[in-house]
Amino acid sequence: MDAAALWQRYQEWLYYHEGLGFYLDVSRMRFDDNFLQTLQPKLDRAFKDIAALEAGAIANPDEDRMVGHYWLRDPDRAPSPELKQGIIDTLEKIETFVQKIHSGEIHPPNAPKFTDLLSIGIGGSALGPEFVAEALAPDFPPMTIHFIDNTDPAGIDRTLTKLKDKLASTLVLVISKSGGTPEPRNGMIEVQNAFAAKGLDFAKQAIATTGVGSHLDKTAHSQGWLDTFPMEDWVGGRTSEMSAVGLLPAALQGIDIRTMLTGAKEMDAATRIPDLKSNPAALLALSWYYVGNGKGEKDMVILPYKDSLLLFSRYLQQLVMESLGKEKDLEGNIVHQGIAVYGNKGSTDQHAYVQQLRDGVANFFVTFIEVLKDREGKSPEIDPGITSGDYLSGFLQGTRKALYENDRQSITVTIPEVNSYTIGALIALYERAVTIYGSLVNVNAYHQPGVEAGKKAAAEILDLQTKVVQLIKQEGKPMYLSQIAEKLDATQDIEAIYKIVRHLAANDRGIALHGNLGKPNTLTVSTS
Amino acid sequence: MDAAALWQRYQEWLYYHEGLGFYLDVSRMRFDDNFLQTLQPKLDRAFKDIAALEAGAIANPDEDRMVGHYWLRDPDRAPSPELKQGIIDTLEKIETFVQKIHSGEIHPPNAPKFTDLLSIGIGGSALGPEFVAEALAPDFPPMTIHFIDNTDPAGIDRTLTKLKDKLASTLVLVISKSGGTPEPRNGMIEVQNAFAAKGLDFAKQAIATTGVGSHLDKTAHSQGWLDTFPMEDWVGGRTSEMSAVGLLPAALQGIDIRTMLTGAKEMDAATRIPDLKSNPAALLALSWYYVGNGKGEKDMVILPYKDSLLLFSRYLQQLVMESLGKEKDLEGNIVHQGIAVYGNKGSTDQHAYVQQLRDGVANFFVTFIEVLKDREGKSPEIDPGITSGDYLSGFLQGTRKALYENDRQSITVTIPEVNSYTIGALIALYERAVTIYGSLVNVNAYHQPGVEAGKKAAAEILDLQTKVVQLIKQEGKPMYLSQIAEKLDATQDIEAIYKIVRHLAANDRGIALHGNLGKPNTLTVSTS
Repeated sequence: MDAAALWQRYQEWLYYHEGLGFYLDVSRMRFDDNFLQTLQPKLDRAFKDIAALEAGAIANPDEDRMVGHYWLRDPDRAPSPELKQGIIDTLEKIETFVQKIHSGEIHPPNAPKFTDLLSIGIGGSALGPEFVAEALAPDFPPMTIHFIDNTDPAGIDRTLTKLKDKLASTLVLVISKSGGTPEPRNGMIEVQNAFAAKGLDFAKQAIATTGVGSHLDKTAHSQGWLDTFPMEDWVGGRTSEMSAVGLLPAALQGIDIRTMLTGAKEMDAATRIPDLKSNPAALLALSWYYVGNGKGEKDMVILPYKDSLLLFSRYLQQLVMESLGKEKDLEGNIVHQGIAVYGNKGSTDQHAYVQQLRDGVANFFVTFIEVLKDREGKSPEIDPGITSGDYLSGFLQGTRKALYENDRQSITVTIPEVNSYTIGALIALYERAVTIYGSLVNVNAYHQPGVEAGKKAAAEILDLQTKVVQLIKQEGKPMYLSQIAEKLDATQDIEAIYKIVRHLAANDRGIALHGNLGKPNTLTVSTS
Repeated sequence: MDAAALWQRYQEWLYYHEGLGFYLDVSRMRFDDNFLQTLQPKLDRAFKDIAALEAGAIANPDEDRMVGHYWLRDPDRAPSPELKQGIIDTLEKIETFVQKIHSGEIHPPNAPKFTDLLSIGIGGSALGPEFVAEALAPDFPPMTIHFIDNTDPAGIDRTLTKLKDKLASTLVLVISKSGGTPEPRNGMIEVQNAFAAKGLDFAKQAIATTGVGSHLDKTAHSQGWLDTFPMEDWVGGRTSEMSAVGLLPAALQGIDIRTMLTGAKEMDAATRIPDLKSNPAALLALSWYYVGNGKGEKDMVILPYKDSLLLFSRYLQQLVMESLGKEKDLEGNIVHQGIAVYGNKGSTDQHAYVQQLRDGVANFFVTFIEVLKDREGKSPEIDPGITSGDYLSGFLQGTRKALYENDRQSITVTIPEVNSYTIGALIALYERAVTIYGSLVNVNAYHQPGVEAGKKAAAEILDLQTKVVQLIKQEGKPMYLSQIAEKLDATQDIEAIYKIVRHLAANDRGIALHGNLGKPNTLTVSTS
């Protein structure tokens, strides 16, 4: 395509939203009219699916749940007055609570104000808050946020060491729908131990965001925690940033959550329009479908040219991959769907893997995120008439052009600046694009059976560990791995047993290994 | 394969290095003897290539350079006495300098000691130092490190705001081979401005790691910077962590660099052995070749189950993708090689994209990184007999097993703990695996032509910007984009012109747009 025709295509497909100052450019995806015609029936069905979903249909058939994250920013759309009032009440409750924390009206027993926030959660309860904190938290926030988002003992220790002198003024937020997910439960127990070791009263410094009536909810109430906030049944983890899960920590950090909701509402309105060219989420979903042949044949590389958007790709990894990465479609056919997502930031990544994107294996498409405003205030000149931001902008343009010339496709999302309004809109855009793509490829985008299976597999390992330790203590003499496996009637699990005792032996847990460590079948296991 | 046969395969392929306490398990890669036989001739050639490379052959024919990063940890292997002495001298120079900084013998004009380190660099001059800082920096380091690794004005502002009250005690390290790479040059100029605004003398607080005789080297000497450290011609950016590029910032943070070098040397010795089963890097390279059919058909997902290894995947993105992502092989055939790399950490990612890995599109293999030691000191019990670390270990095992059962392949790397010794070894392992794989697929793993092309494309954009601004000011009346393009004899660049003026208009740069922003051909451009 020559330059004139390409410029024509650029203008023909350029999407612009005046209120948001938002642009979407899909001109560098090489779909043609033929493809559009083929996809139109699927797209029409997707628009219908979404209208039903927004009206409260059961969109997650496996779990018999409604999917209501769109209602969070426009409560009038909730399918019942009770749901609507619940959304309004929670938002007000968050704002009232945050105001009392910031003013010191609610304060820890031994300090006039809470200075730090320790958020304990995983998956959707961490990725959204982490992304938003990095993108939007002010340089001098009213509270500094810290995260425990794993069950890594050394990681927990590192975070607690950072908080060493500030634990007495740290507000702990535990985010878990049931309270039963091991990672946040373990994090909570470890933090409770740290509080006890310092003689601090955990309950007087703790809040929870959890399902009403959950185990965690009951614990919080019976122990007299400061407060609890609801995690609704109809909000999935990966779309919970604009529920209490995301709003509460954001507000505590001084982020303007009302504006974030308004940005999302504005984008929701735009992406509700059942017409391809007027709907940026549909344009994204269609582009993904085109480039990956509806089967995820190309990876989605996310390249924001802005440091503060570094964690956007990690946020999207969950939103996109957990939603779309499914074994079966809604009819039960084996389809192995999904789109792999990765990326960091430009122009930094141009000095890392962009070499491969330009020249190497062509298994991806790029989404550039462009931010028009460089910084607050004036920029110094680096060269005559040229600023650091001009370089950043030039790098984005240069890379996009070079990729296109090498037959690598790309999308460009442009926002005027990084603020609560545009971040709300970006999140809403991708939530809707995933909804539409899920419908195009006919998968349930709202469950995660593989995650449950992973929890189960781990529980079996822990169960086996308990049995192994018991046996070794009972026997009181060195045993070969094969002997342990036989005695436990678990010969098929011998490798798991080996891994368990190797891990225990490395951690002074009363188990020792003797023999050649490189030859597991020579090893004997005993108490140490 | 039944459990007994799988356990047999596990033991048969288990690699163990006693000195390093290091394990590598490739039993879950489904290669067979037939494949091994087919690959053996290529592997033999790779071992020969590497022996030549280590002896000082020109391994980067495009740039006529030796590839000497292996000499950095074993100077006796350098191909000349001068090179050997240079390596020894640089290491000693680093240690002496760092000792003087830590003791306060070298201190800033207005403070008794340097408290913070601001490292300005991009690509290999950032990814290695960032990974190592996250993995190894002590909780209370002698100096706190900060990075500027981009040319994002807002990102630079954020870092400088953090250093606001500490700029007078901040040591600035500029890392750039030539000094001409725009991102570090821009960062340096912006930081110099910040110093000047505070009335601080930049030169008295600045050091550089750069090529001897480079523009930056000359600047540093003529301005009287505190010191400079050499960046060798025979060390590529992505393998420079154990040159002054990585060692200097690490040592300033209190990281034991001698031990890091020893760990790397130990691994180098192991990966020099020209025998598959005795060589963990060969086992890795062979596994990559097998799973991706020698064409990078599967993405490499890096999953360390340890928070402090979070940035390992980002480090490997450069090392692997920039080395292997090449258009042509060494004979000039078009091959579009490479392997895509992404990942974060477990078990966190099990609540994000592992859903897709288990159930979705099967376009990847996983590398689990297992760390045997959970933490310093004793762990509390979460359940009877069970710790947080047991959960972490159980999650790794469970996910590995479930992936295998779903026909997704994986590698497991096991290290005893995260310390300077094992991190040095891990870096050396992957450097060598990339060297071997590069040889197996016959590409030049040491150049990056696409990166150069990207710089050139950006320079053209900036050049165009200068012309556009000049024209608009000269004309003094509103012009359509097409008119600007015609007057500049650049009709093929009209889209670039549009992007340039849109960016300038968003940043109060004396350029204004009028018309319908969503319809570029309606816009007129004028001075504002």
